[in-house]
Amino acid sequence: MAESQQNINSDILSGIRLPKDLRALPVEELPKVCAALRSRIVSTLSRNPGHFASSMGVVELTVALHYVFDTPEDRLVWDVGHQAYAHKLLTGRADRFDTLRREGGLSGFPNPAESEYDTFIAGHASNSISAALGMAVADLLTPGNEKRRTVAIIGDASISGGLAFEGLNNATQHDNNLLIVLNDNDMSIDPNVGALHRYLSKLTTSAGYNRMRFRAYNFLKRHNVISEKGRGLLIRFTNSVKSLISKRQNIFEGLNIRYFGPIDGHDVVSLVKTLTEIRDMQGPRLLHICTRKGNGYAPAEQNPSVWHAPGKFVAETGERIKSDSGGHQKWQDVFGDALVELAEKHEEVVGITAAMPSGTSICKMMNVMPERVFDVGISEGHAVTFAGGLAAAGKHPFVAIYSSFLQRAYDNIIHDVAIQGLPVTFCIDRAGVVGDDGVTHHGLFDLAYLSVIPGMKIAAPMDEETLRNLMYTSLSVNSPMAIRYPRGAAPGIPPYAGFRTIEVGKGRLLNEGEQGGVAILSIGDAGNDARKAVSQLEADGIPTAHYDMIWLSPLDEDLLREVAGKYSSVVTVEDASVHGGLGSAVTEWMSRNAPNVSVKKLGAPADAWVAHASVQRQKEKCGYDAAAIAEAVKDCFKAEVVKDCK
Amino acid sequence: MAESQQNINSDILSGIRLPKDLRALPVEELPKVCAALRSRIVSTLSRNPGHFASSMGVVELTVALHYVFDTPEDRLVWDVGHQAYAHKLLTGRADRFDTLRREGGLSGFPNPAESEYDTFIAGHASNSISAALGMAVADLLTPGNEKRRTVAIIGDASISGGLAFEGLNNATQHDNNLLIVLNDNDMSIDPNVGALHRYLSKLTTSAGYNRMRFRAYNFLKRHNVISEKGRGLLIRFTNSVKSLISKRQNIFEGLNIRYFGPIDGHDVVSLVKTLTEIRDMQGPRLLHICTRKGNGYAPAEQNPSVWHAPGKFVAETGERIKSDSGGHQKWQDVFGDALVELAEKHEEVVGITAAMPSGTSICKMMNVMPERVFDVGISEGHAVTFAGGLAAAGKHPFVAIYSSFLQRAYDNIIHDVAIQGLPVTFCIDRAGVVGDDGVTHHGLFDLAYLSVIPGMKIAAPMDEETLRNLMYTSLSVNSPMAIRYPRGAAPGIPPYAGFRTIEVGKGRLLNEGEQGGVAILSIGDAGNDARKAVSQLEADGIPTAHYDMIWLSPLDEDLLREVAGKYSSVVTVEDASVHGGLGSAVTEWMSRNAPNVSVKKLGAPADAWVAHASVQRQKEKCGYDAAAIAEAVKDCFKAEVVKDCK
Repeated sequence: MAESQQNINSDILSGIRLPKDLRALPVEELPKVCAALRSRIVSTLSRNPGHFASSMGVVELTVALHYVFDTPEDRLVWDVGHQAYAHKLLTGRADRFDTLRREGGLSGFPNPAESEYDTFIAGHASNSISAALGMAVADLLTPGNEKRRTVAIIGDASISGGLAFEGLNNATQHDNNLLIVLNDNDMSIDPNVGALHRYLSKLTTSAGYNRMRFRAYNFLKRHNVISEKGRGLLIRFTNSVKSLISKRQNIFEGLNIRYFGPIDGHDVVSLVKTLTEIRDMQGPRLLHICTRKGNGYAPAEQNPSVWHAPGKFVAETGERIKSDSGGHQKWQDVFGDALVELAEKHEEVVGITAAMPSGTSICKMMNVMPERVFDVGISEGHAVTFAGGLAAAGKHPFVAIYSSFLQRAYDNIIHDVAIQGLPVTFCIDRAGVVGDDGVTHHGLFDLAYLSVIPGMKIAAPMDEETLRNLMYTSLSVNSPMAIRYPRGAAPGIPPYAGFRTIEVGKGRLLNEGEQGGVAILSIGDAGNDARKAVSQLEADGIPTAHYDMIWLSPLDEDLLREVAGKYSSVVTVEDASVHGGLGSAVTEWMSRNAPNVSVKKLGAPADAWVAHASVQRQKEKCGYDAAAIAEAVKDCFKAEVVKDCK
Repeated sequence: MAESQQNINSDILSGIRLPKDLRALPVEELPKVCAALRSRIVSTLSRNPGHFASSMGVVELTVALHYVFDTPEDRLVWDVGHQAYAHKLLTGRADRFDTLRREGGLSGFPNPAESEYDTFIAGHASNSISAALGMAVADLLTPGNEKRRTVAIIGDASISGGLAFEGLNNATQHDNNLLIVLNDNDMSIDPNVGALHRYLSKLTTSAGYNRMRFRAYNFLKRHNVISEKGRGLLIRFTNSVKSLISKRQNIFEGLNIRYFGPIDGHDVVSLVKTLTEIRDMQGPRLLHICTRKGNGYAPAEQNPSVWHAPGKFVAETGERIKSDSGGHQKWQDVFGDALVELAEKHEEVVGITAAMPSGTSICKMMNVMPERVFDVGISEGHAVTFAGGLAAAGKHPFVAIYSSFLQRAYDNIIHDVAIQGLPVTFCIDRAGVVGDDGVTHHGLFDLAYLSVIPGMKIAAPMDEETLRNLMYTSLSVNSPMAIRYPRGAAPGIPPYAGFRTIEVGKGRLLNEGEQGGVAILSIGDAGNDARKAVSQLEADGIPTAHYDMIWLSPLDEDLLREVAGKYSSVVTVEDASVHGGLGSAVTEWMSRNAPNVSVKKLGAPADAWVAHASVQRQKEKCGYDAAAIAEAVKDCFKAEVVKDCK
C-alpha cells in the first residue's frame, strides 16, 4: 500500500471517535472509511494476532450498520464476536486497538463490560437471534423504548445451529421489529460445487423437484462427476439452511419473517441504501448479504480458512510468521494421530466433531477414512445424541469437542449417552484456561458438570503417552468416558508407541516425599506445572511427594489411603474450577477418612471469571502455575498448626 | 363397549405375544388389533394412570410399523416415549402392562434395559432423529447390518426443537436410509385458526406471498377478526415447522429429505400400504401422517390437553377421578400465583417457559397478562438466551423450566446469562426425584451443575412463604439466581401474604439441639422430611438441631460456624445428588474450618440412577425420607467414636 494512501486512511479514521462522527460524513466518504479500517486491521493483526478473515469480511456491513442505525441507542448483536474488530474501531476503542486480546487490553469479542456499544456476549455461536429477539421484545414492552431498533448479525455457519433455528422459529411468536442480517460468506463450497448447485437450483420446485434432485445426485455420483470429497461438499451445501433460501423455497418466508436480498455485502453505499429502506419497517425481517471472508486482503481471500486466525504475518506480503511451539506436538495432534491408529485397528471406532475438524485435529482421521468421521457443523447437541445412536448400533464414537462448547450438549451427554451407559469417548479439547480468547472460551467447568453424572468415567493425561493409552483404554471400559486435555503444546515427553491399557481409577506416584510432609495430587496437564514445582522444592531442600491422579472418576481410593497414611498435608492442582473437581473430591474423601490431613485446593477460582491473557499469566493469576504450587507447599510447612494450611 | 366385542378384542391380542405374531395376521385383521389395543389402554390407564392421549393417537401407526418392519432387527426410535404404550403391548410386555410406571414394573417410556424392542431412551423431546441417524449410519458401516432399517417417529411439537433441526440438517450429510415418520397431531390449533390458516395457505408462494401474508395478518388484527389469544395461536402455527411443509415450501425437500404425505394416520391398512412402498427406498425420507391425540376415546378427542395424562378415570364414561392432594397447593401454583402478584407490582417482570405453561403454572400469568409471558415451545436453549436478551434490555425474566429439561440450556445459562451477570430468575420446577416418570425426568443434578457457575445464586424453599419471598428477593439481587422446588404438593404451611426480602445467603434455625449433639442441615422441601425426623427424634428423647439452609450459594458461613461450635455431627439432607450439592459444600467447609465435626450426606446416590416408583418410595430407597434421616442421626449417637459417623 502506498504511503500517501495510508495517510489518507489514517486521517479519515482519526476523525471518527464514535459512530456519531461516522454519521456526520457524506455517504460517498464511506468507502474510504472502509479502506482505512481494513488497513488498520491488517497492520495491527500482523503484529498482534487475532481473528482476521471474519472481521475483514464485514467491514462494509459494520460501517453501514453504524451509519444507518443510531447506535448505541439502537443495538447491534454480533453472532460469534470475532468479526467485531471494525465495530470496536468505530466505537471509541481505536486508541486501544493495539491491546486486542492482550492482558488488560480489549477483549477479542464484544463484551458489555467493555463498551455500551457491545450489547451482548458473543463467544459461542448461534445465540444472536434469541438474544436480540429478547431485546426487541423488551423494547416494545418498555414505555419510551419503542423506537429503539435491534439488529442481529449472524453468519451462514452459525445460523445452522439448533439455537439459531429455535430463535428463528420464535421470531414471529411475539411482537417485535427485529432485523436479522444473514452474512453469507459461503465458506464451505468450492467453485465446481457451486456450479453444480446453480444447475440444480434451476430445477423447478414442483412436485417432481425433489425426486429430480435425488436422481441428479445419483446420476452424478454414478458417473463420477462428483468425487467423494466433492459429493460431501455438495451434500453439505444442499443440506443446510442456505439451500432453504432460494426464491421458491424460503425458510424465512415460511417462518413468516420478511426476506430481503441477497445483496452484495461489499458495496457499502448500496448497503446503506438498503438498510435505510428496511430500517423502520415493522415486524421481524431478514436481510441476506453476500460477503467474502478476508475481503480486501488477497492472501486471505485466497485461503480464508488459514486466515481465520493466521497468527503474526508480514502485512505487505501476507507471509505468515510461524510461532515457536518449542518443537512439541500439540495435545490435539496427539489425539488426532492416536485416533487414526486406533481406527485402523478397531473397525468400531468412528469420529465425530461439531465444526472443529482442524481445531481438534480429527481432520487427520478424516483425511484417511472420511466415511468414518462425521463433522456435523455447529450442533454440539446433535453430535452427542448422534454418537449415542452410533454407539447403540455397535460403534464406538470418539466425540472431539472443546470443553466450553460441550456445555451445549450437557443434556445430550446425560440423557442420550449416560443413562444408557453407552460406550462413547468424549475427547475434550481446550480444557482449562485457554488464553487470549478469554472468558467465553475457558473449559473450567467440565470436571464439575461431568462428575455428577452417574457412571461417567473422567480422566486427564499429563503426557502424550497417557492420552494415547486413555483413548485405547476407553475402548474396553464399555461405558461413557471423558478425557480432557488443554489447548496448545503437550509436554513433549518421549517415547511413545503402541497402546497399553491403563487401569481404570488408578493414579501413579511420580515423586516420593517425606513422612509427615506434603503431597501434591494433580490431574492432567497441570501435573507438568506441579512437576516443575517439585523440582524447585527439592532444590530448596523440601522433598515433596507428587501423585498424578489421572482419574477423577472413579477416584483412586487406594492412592488416597496411601497419601493419608504418609503425609500431613495435601495440595491438589487442576486446570479447572476448584469447585466440584479434584480438589473437592479429595477434600471430601479426606474429611470422611482422614480428617487430620489438611487439603489445599489450587485451580481456577470458584467465584470469578478469568479474563483474557496468556495461559501462563492466567495460571499465575489464578494461583496454580509452578511458582504458586511451590508456594502453597511451603505455606503448609510454614503454618504452625496443620489446620492453618487449609 | 359391549362385552362380546371386548372378548373378541382380548382374543386377538392374546394371540400376539411378539411382533412376528402380528405379522402372521392378514392385513384385514389389523383394525381389530387396533381396537383391542385401544380397549386395553383405556381399561388399564383408567385404573393405573399414565400418558393417555399420545399413545391412543399412534395405535394404528404402531401396528403398521411392527407389521411392515422386521422388528427388532429393524429399529423403531420413538421421540418422547410416552406414546409407546401400544408398542409395549405388542412387544412381549402385555402381561406386565398393568405394572406400567409402578415400582418394579414397566417404565412409562421406552427403555433399552427393559426390551430389545426399545432401541433408545426417550424421555426428553427432539432426540429421535439424531439417535436414529446414528443407528442408520452405523448399520451401513457394519458388514452384515446393511439391510437393517431404522425409523424415527417424531411429533410436530418435538420436531420444532433445535436438536431435531440439527438432526434434520445432518440427515443427508452422511450415507443412510433413515425413515422419519412425522406424527402431526396439530395440537395447538383450534378450528377457527385452522380455517384462517387454510385461507392463508391458498395464497401463492410467489414473490408477493410473504408480503401478502403479512398484510393479511395486519388486516385481520386491525379488524379484530383475530382475538389477542387467537392471534397468538395463528402466529404460533404459521411460525412453526408445520408451516414449512406445504407443497410449495417444504423444509424437508429443501434439506434434501424425500417427503411423502400427508396421509391419514388412523387408516391402518393404508398406512401399511404406504410404509411398504417406501420401506426399502434408499436415502433419508420422511412420511408425514396426520393423527388425533386421544383418537378412539371421545372424551380424550374432545379435550386432548387434559387427557395428556388424565389420572384415574371411569373407563365407560370418561369421568376423571380426582386424586387427593391433601388440600395443599402445589409448589408450581405457589410459584404461578406469586409471579402474577410480582408482575402486577413490577413492570419489569416477564415470564418465560418452554412448552410447560400448565406444568409450571406460568399459565396463571399468561391468563392475566399474555403480552408479558412467552411460551417458546420445546426450545429450552432459546428460552434462556431470549431471557438474557430481555434482561440486557432492562426486563427481569422469570424462566420456569423443569430441572431435568434445564440441562438442555446449560451453556445458555453460563454463556448468555451468567458471564454478563444478568438478572434472570430461574424457577426450577420438578427439582429432586419425580416419581413415576422415572430416570429421565428426575431433577437431581441442578445443584451440582449450577453451583460451579461463578456468581450464580442458588436457593430452595421448604415452604410456600419462602418460595414467594425468594422470588421477590431475586428482583433486587441484580444477578442470576436459581430457585428450585419439587413436583407436587407444598407442605401447606400457612399463613402467607405480601412479600418480604430474604437476606441472601442466610439460613435459619428451626430447632435447637443439644451441645455436642447432632444438627440436621437441610435445603428445600427435604426440610419437611427432616422436620418429621426431628419430631420423631425428640419423641424418642433425642433433641436434634435443625437448620433450613435456604441457600446453597452463597453458603451461610455464619450458620456453619454456629453449628461447628455447638454440635459434633452434622447430617445434610437434600433432594438432589449427594455429589456437588449441599452435602459436598458443608463437608468441604467443615473440613477447612472444623475438621472434628463429622458430616453425613443424605440425598440421591452419586453413582446410580433412580428408577421409577412413587416419590416417597424413591426417597426411602435413596435413604433420605424422614425415617432414614432419623436413623442417620441415631447412627451418629450409636457410633463409639465420632469418626465412625462419617
